[in-house]
Amino acid sequence: MNWSDNRLCRLLGIDLPVIQGGMIYMSGAKLAAAVSNAGGLGLLGSGSMRPDLFGEQLAKCRSLTDRPFGVNVPLLYPHSREVVELAVADGVTIFVTSAGSPKRAIGVLKKAGCTVLHVVASPELAVKCEDAGCDAVICEGFEAGGHNGREELTTMVLVPQCVQAVNIPVVAAGGIATGGQWAAAMALGADGVQVGSRFAVTRESSGHEAFKQAVVEAGAGDTMLAMKRHVPVRLLRNRFFEQVAEAEARGADRDELQELLGQGRARRGMLEGDLDEGELEIGQVSGLIDDVPTVAEVVARMSTDYTAAVTRLAGA
Amino acid sequence: MNWSDNRLCRLLGIDLPVIQGGMIYMSGAKLAAAVSNAGGLGLLGSGSMRPDLFGEQLAKCRSLTDRPFGVNVPLLYPHSREVVELAVADGVTIFVTSAGSPKRAIGVLKKAGCTVLHVVASPELAVKCEDAGCDAVICEGFEAGGHNGREELTTMVLVPQCVQAVNIPVVAAGGIATGGQWAAAMALGADGVQVGSRFAVTRESSGHEAFKQAVVEAGAGDTMLAMKRHVPVRLLRNRFFEQVAEAEARGADRDELQELLGQGRARRGMLEGDLDEGELEIGQVSGLIDDVPTVAEVVARMSTDYTAAVTRLAGA
Repeated sequence: MNWSDNRLCRLLGIDLPVIQGGMIYMSGAKLAAAVSNAGGLGLLGSGSMRPDLFGEQLAKCRSLTDRPFGVNVPLLYPHSREVVELAVADGVTIFVTSAGSPKRAIGVLKKAGCTVLHVVASPELAVKCEDAGCDAVICEGFEAGGHNGREELTTMVLVPQCVQAVNIPVVAAGGIATGGQWAAAMALGADGVQVGSRFAVTRESSGHEAFKQAVVEAGAGDTMLAMKRHVPVRLLRNRFFEQVAEAEARGADRDELQELLGQGRARRGMLEGDLDEGELEIGQVSGLIDDVPTVAEVVARMSTDYTAAVTRLAGA
Repeated sequence: MNWSDNRLCRLLGIDLPVIQGGMIYMSGAKLAAAVSNAGGLGLLGSGSMRPDLFGEQLAKCRSLTDRPFGVNVPLLYPHSREVVELAVADGVTIFVTSAGSPKRAIGVLKKAGCTVLHVVASPELAVKCEDAGCDAVICEGFEAGGHNGREELTTMVLVPQCVQAVNIPVVAAGGIATGGQWAAAMALGADGVQVGSRFAVTRESSGHEAFKQAVVEAGAGDTMLAMKRHVPVRLLRNRFFEQVAEAEARGADRDELQELLGQGRARRGMLEGDLDEGELEIGQVSGLIDDVPTVAEVVARMSTDYTAAVTRLAGA
């Protein structure tokens, strides 16, 4: 395919309209640099990093790639402001913001001359992002791993509605791990895709090997949305998930759920590999992830399969 | 597009790989015949018909079209056996079975020389259908209206997994109302699509005009899955939905929910137009449905937009 006219590629200065999702405990310098080196946009996921660790990873990422990369900043996290300051001072020009209102953060970033993409789960929020000056929106469907919108709109219905609602580029996210899914997202009118789970399960991902293996072994129905009424999050089913589900089923309140969640559950599961008691954030697309290849291999496969899907469609 | 080599079209003897979903209170003879006359496969939705009414609708459908049409039979419904006998005796050769194990019903239908498609929500069930002798599977994602799988797999992740799992044709359902969504489903490897909500909101649908209007006015997040732990069903939010959601949130048991659901809620909502107290089954794609056109108009639009999407993809 020839992506030279693709407006997401032009906006970000990349060769392929594929963004690697910023994921806690997965997307450090190694993963982000590998994706950028493969022609996509790598993102440092700052959500699980204290500022000092973030600074180190930022320096490392610079040393590993000359290509553009960005930083994902969940706005509600305690260190988000400091992370943004560090990154801007270092010369980062691409930010993906999520988990919070884009308005305030975007003002600062736009003043600094940065390109800002915000993650949304509804066409209404996509419009607010465009109005606030965002350069693009990332529309993330119900099937996505980790934190998730309350509207439960799937990628298939969310993306066309966002494409209708805004004029800025639309990136589809949620349920995209193969070239066929990438082509499907483009058929829905997206300008590009964000890929999370598939990059979380690569050699360059900093997730624990036991976690990666658990995703490889997961079947079709093995993830589920937990905490639907509070902070929806898609998890791989395990003992911890069952505890949360049981508490929810009997109508536990927010405080009880918060205590159950406790501190460090995600770190325990995804970074330390505690498959029973840890929180294992991953997308529904796990059922299509069967190995732990390199990032370059993932991108090559996806590109080949994308072309095959488009050729097949055009031949009908 | 040229669909003469499409294996779903060849299996069913139709011109376009588009099946109209069999929907209670929506899909009588008028809707089914209109879809078949437009080149797709119309289905009589027998789920809401007693055998005498079904017999009338069957005769009427024959009088309205010379093209192939089929019958949708929810296997768990009380009259399903009688409906199947009536239809087979009348010469119907295409059946879509749903809501129940395909095994027993399929044996009878295959012996009678019929073509059988079963609706599934997981790749595991798709494999069982193939083993049981089904001619095709309809893979229905989480975004679909009405009754829904427990796995909550979205169309984007369900379809490719079913395509991997079976050799028989795979029909994608859930979230498909536009030509772009149709093209997306084909990019995922589907052989065709089943379209429900979009056909429910046409002139030929037998749903109440007030119900159709409510879907036209619905926004992106206005449907939600209710009864998740019992019999998941996607509904338009209304007073009845809120009552169910409230009961679920405080941990109501199956009996209480069953009583709340009561008898005739769906009839009241969809056929009689009681938008407050009725059960309004419709898909998440409601947010993309903005008018009440004829079936011919829907099919023409979808075909034009399909071609546009494929051409756009091939040009990149």
